[in-house]
Amino acid sequence: MKSDLDALMLEKDLEAILITGPAQHNPAMVYMTGGGHVSSADLIKRRGQAPVLFYNPMERDEAAKSGLTTKNLMNYNFSELLGQTGGDYQRAIAKRYQHMLTELGADRGNIALYGRSEIGTFYAIFSALQNEMPEINLVGEINNSVLMLARMTKDETEIERIRKMGKVTTEVVGLVADYITSHRVRGGVMIKADGEPLTIRDVKQRINLWLSERGAENPEGTIFAIGRDAGVPHSSGNLDDPLELGHTIVFDIYPCEAGGGYFYDFTRTWCLGFAPDEVISLYDTVLTAYNQMASQLQVGKPFKEYQDAVCDLFSAQGHPTIKEDPQTQTGYVHSLGHGIGLNVHERPWSGSNSDEKDCLVPGVVFTLEPGLYYPDKGMGIRLENSLCVRPDGTMEVLADYPMDLILPVKSS
Amino acid sequence: MKSDLDALMLEKDLEAILITGPAQHNPAMVYMTGGGHVSSADLIKRRGQAPVLFYNPMERDEAAKSGLTTKNLMNYNFSELLGQTGGDYQRAIAKRYQHMLTELGADRGNIALYGRSEIGTFYAIFSALQNEMPEINLVGEINNSVLMLARMTKDETEIERIRKMGKVTTEVVGLVADYITSHRVRGGVMIKADGEPLTIRDVKQRINLWLSERGAENPEGTIFAIGRDAGVPHSSGNLDDPLELGHTIVFDIYPCEAGGGYFYDFTRTWCLGFAPDEVISLYDTVLTAYNQMASQLQVGKPFKEYQDAVCDLFSAQGHPTIKEDPQTQTGYVHSLGHGIGLNVHERPWSGSNSDEKDCLVPGVVFTLEPGLYYPDKGMGIRLENSLCVRPDGTMEVLADYPMDLILPVKSS
Repeated sequence: MKSDLDALMLEKDLEAILITGPAQHNPAMVYMTGGGHVSSADLIKRRGQAPVLFYNPMERDEAAKSGLTTKNLMNYNFSELLGQTGGDYQRAIAKRYQHMLTELGADRGNIALYGRSEIGTFYAIFSALQNEMPEINLVGEINNSVLMLARMTKDETEIERIRKMGKVTTEVVGLVADYITSHRVRGGVMIKADGEPLTIRDVKQRINLWLSERGAENPEGTIFAIGRDAGVPHSSGNLDDPLELGHTIVFDIYPCEAGGGYFYDFTRTWCLGFAPDEVISLYDTVLTAYNQMASQLQVGKPFKEYQDAVCDLFSAQGHPTIKEDPQTQTGYVHSLGHGIGLNVHERPWSGSNSDEKDCLVPGVVFTLEPGLYYPDKGMGIRLENSLCVRPDGTMEVLADYPMDLILPVKSS
Repeated sequence: MKSDLDALMLEKDLEAILITGPAQHNPAMVYMTGGGHVSSADLIKRRGQAPVLFYNPMERDEAAKSGLTTKNLMNYNFSELLGQTGGDYQRAIAKRYQHMLTELGADRGNIALYGRSEIGTFYAIFSALQNEMPEINLVGEINNSVLMLARMTKDETEIERIRKMGKVTTEVVGLVADYITSHRVRGGVMIKADGEPLTIRDVKQRINLWLSERGAENPEGTIFAIGRDAGVPHSSGNLDDPLELGHTIVFDIYPCEAGGGYFYDFTRTWCLGFAPDEVISLYDTVLTAYNQMASQLQVGKPFKEYQDAVCDLFSAQGHPTIKEDPQTQTGYVHSLGHGIGLNVHERPWSGSNSDEKDCLVPGVVFTLEPGLYYPDKGMGIRLENSLCVRPDGTMEVLADYPMDLILPVKSS
């Protein structure tokens, strides 16, 4: 949680953190500012002190809405800095950072960098800053970033926002099911009023619309993939594909609050009308795995223990898994889950390489999503809910929705 | 244009360009791949050679849709690299880049970095890569980035996509005008059927919906600001503000193709019912400035000449401008326009510091947006269209829409 930041910074010997970029679709900045229409800003938090938001004067009102201490970037005369550096933008911006850091007393020690922006531009600027200030050490954290560690556990306000997105998500999933099954069938394909086949494009357009109506968006898209595409976990589906009966549809939806806020993550696998025996059997295996894992989850355990367990479970039934063959593209090919928050994928990780810190402790919000994939057989199954570890150690599924495989359709 | 890339790379002595990050909401990657559901990839283009897209095996189908040469990142045994570096992720990823670059023959000279992603993470990775490969020179371009220079001129396909977004944008603006004026007035405020005031929140919800229905989104929000907020150019407006008659509303809308594609940029200023004399006079000044600038635009000219001209024009009428006082927050406080494309703001720039290369040459798509702001008087005016320089040197407004200030409302 945010209140852990100073302790985490101390543990990692960070003197300050520096976040840059917009306040939308930029998790680190959203985390510290609450979001809002700030298109470009810098935030510096020195250890033990409150964060300071540096804003462009055109955005002073939006910056003020953050409730943080704010400073106008115009105070650092950029034309003068540009003069001092002989017109070198990179060094002029670096010098501005130097002034900002120095003013806050963060002029030595480790300073960690965060924010989503243009990596090339900032590689250049921060290389120049490191040059200007040899007494600091600019750190780009890959694993164990203090911000990601802080964000790994959520407070009640954050959990409630994710729960709300869960409600939005499952409402939209319900609307999609109703929409699809309201169509007639002809020749094994869902048909629209105009006689044309109902396609994935039609479905996705509705999804976007219904999310938007509910104050949500899906900046990373939606997976709605049928047949062979359902067998490729991250295929988003072919827009022109018609909705055919009896083929697996993997519907993985991961919207966030509009403007790039908290995400939800949810998957169901459907077959329209009926399912072949082979699909039913695969689905039963995945559902059983989901239920077993869900019932075994214990507070405080490393997430990867369950990845290990589900691999063994699938292996025992003859499915290839990435535990034995990390390169397999059939069977069980991904990890059991991940944290969710301002990133759709964040800590805790459940992969076999994940850290001891990736544990299911209270405040953690995570997905549980076993799946089995056989693209060459034209099928894939994944079932996913998002859960939260409650303060009492129980696991709460944040939004309920039936697990059913078959969506009944009207006889033609 | 993309076809200029090799020549631009030669001019700047770049051996290769390296782009990283997702293929959505990441202009550099979208430019090279066409977008699509690739959540994380690398693209390397060596000078004189076709680009190569390195993908995560889970996303092989999506990567293939780009039509580019693709390579599986799994080919570079990451566990082995991690072993070689004693578990140092940063160096292991750097070593993977080293293999990728070396394989393509880009193992010396200047290599420019692009892509929108986590700046801290990539600062660390690229610092490690620079360390591993002293014979290359990693470059983060700030000004005159070859990619931004290539992107500054658009081909017909790109222009047509922007024109389509212009159509979507003006359709939505028309719907907003109809929606607002369909309401009754009571006590100088627009009122909903339930007797509550119509607010900016109501309007923005519709905007999101109508954009979504048309395959567009507004990842950077929408400015719909009334009264004092209209006088602060980048205030996005207060969601709870009621729509009052006789106050300026600055409506600046800049949506893009869903998934982070080409943008459009458009502003009108409205007064509901009537406008005070002071507002009408300010509006007339801005409209005259718009028309004068539009009529003076000449192919091949540096964009900043018009910024200079419009400052003089406003100054002559007694308005403060940033030409005399770069810090002014009243009068004319921003630049006359900017390029648009996969970024809502891109080259050519019109600011007084902009480059000789920022010229209105054929293929350039740009905004023209004079404005005057008096927040303390509770008013601001901005009028903006997006234009394109045609091959014959004429200027095309990409989407027509009336410039009218007053939106008539039904008498109560």
